[in-house]
Amino acid sequence: MAPPTNLKQLFVHTLKDVYYAENQIAKALPKMAEKASAPGLRKGFEEHLKETKVQIKRLEQVFELCSEKPSGEKCPAIEGILREGEDLMKEIKDDDTRDAGMIAAAQAVEHYEIARYGALVAWAGQLGMTDARNILRDTLAEEKDTDAKLTRLAEDKLNKKAA
Amino acid sequence: MAPPTNLKQLFVHTLKDVYYAENQIAKALPKMAEKASAPGLRKGFEEHLKETKVQIKRLEQVFELCSEKPSGEKCPAIEGILREGEDLMKEIKDDDTRDAGMIAAAQAVEHYEIARYGALVAWAGQLGMTDARNILRDTLAEEKDTDAKLTRLAEDKLNKKAA
Repeated sequence: MAPPTNLKQLFVHTLKDVYYAENQIAKALPKMAEKASAPGLRKGFEEHLKETKVQIKRLEQVFELCSEKPSGEKCPAIEGILREGEDLMKEIKDDDTRDAGMIAAAQAVEHYEIARYGALVAWAGQLGMTDARNILRDTLAEEKDTDAKLTRLAEDKLNKKAA
Repeated sequence: MAPPTNLKQLFVHTLKDVYYAENQIAKALPKMAEKASAPGLRKGFEEHLKETKVQIKRLEQVFELCSEKPSGEKCPAIEGILREGEDLMKEIKDDDTRDAGMIAAAQAVEHYEIARYGALVAWAGQLGMTDARNILRDTLAEEKDTDAKLTRLAEDKLNKKAA
């Protein structure tokens, strides 16, 4: 893909980056759910997979609003974030410690998405793309909510078990 | 390094991850400042470099509190995040578009740090390491503040120029 030369092209470039990231996350979540020891954490990952599938559909709507075909752009950032989580997930043998590590890894994923959707929402607003902005804003709110839920799960239950 | 088997070891493992990340960020920031076109953005990166150096010292204090020698653990997440920003920085020829992209890249870095320091603060609290928790909390507050400053800079000025 040619380098962006204006904000609209940077928006589409980042949309492809996030589309790739969401699809990678959708592949990673079932493995994370399987490895989760605490039922609350497993359920959390399963629910977030459902949400992620909706978020992918939303991105496809935004591509359509931009008259672009949905496609991903390989994103080294999400690959690094997911690889780090996967390594930890495989290496840690103690269930409670692994759960604590997986929550932290999932929060790194959420924060990556918050950063990316935050930029997309701001750029869509700046570009006068109100429909796209509103769609992306829904996802941004969900990602922030998921991050807050993971914090509560960690602080109320799982860190205590791991300590 | 052996895989962590309890929360204290996971804490130290993550401390090494963040120590590596902060040192990589300290190397990236001067290049980002040099490439920034808007004076406000350049100044922002230069100021954040100063902050980052203090944050590295703080991590060294926390290593000491854990009776560990400061050392980094190669962190694929920050490498991916920084590589993505570097690629964009090199490829985009239009100054205003590059500035908008660099702010977004810097916010992805900030959010990675917010996620990591958030976990460290929670774990330090759980482990009864009050001094370490307070030190890390200072950095967490700074990272959130830097992210908010970048949002204001983007929304008030730079996105308008790029649009």
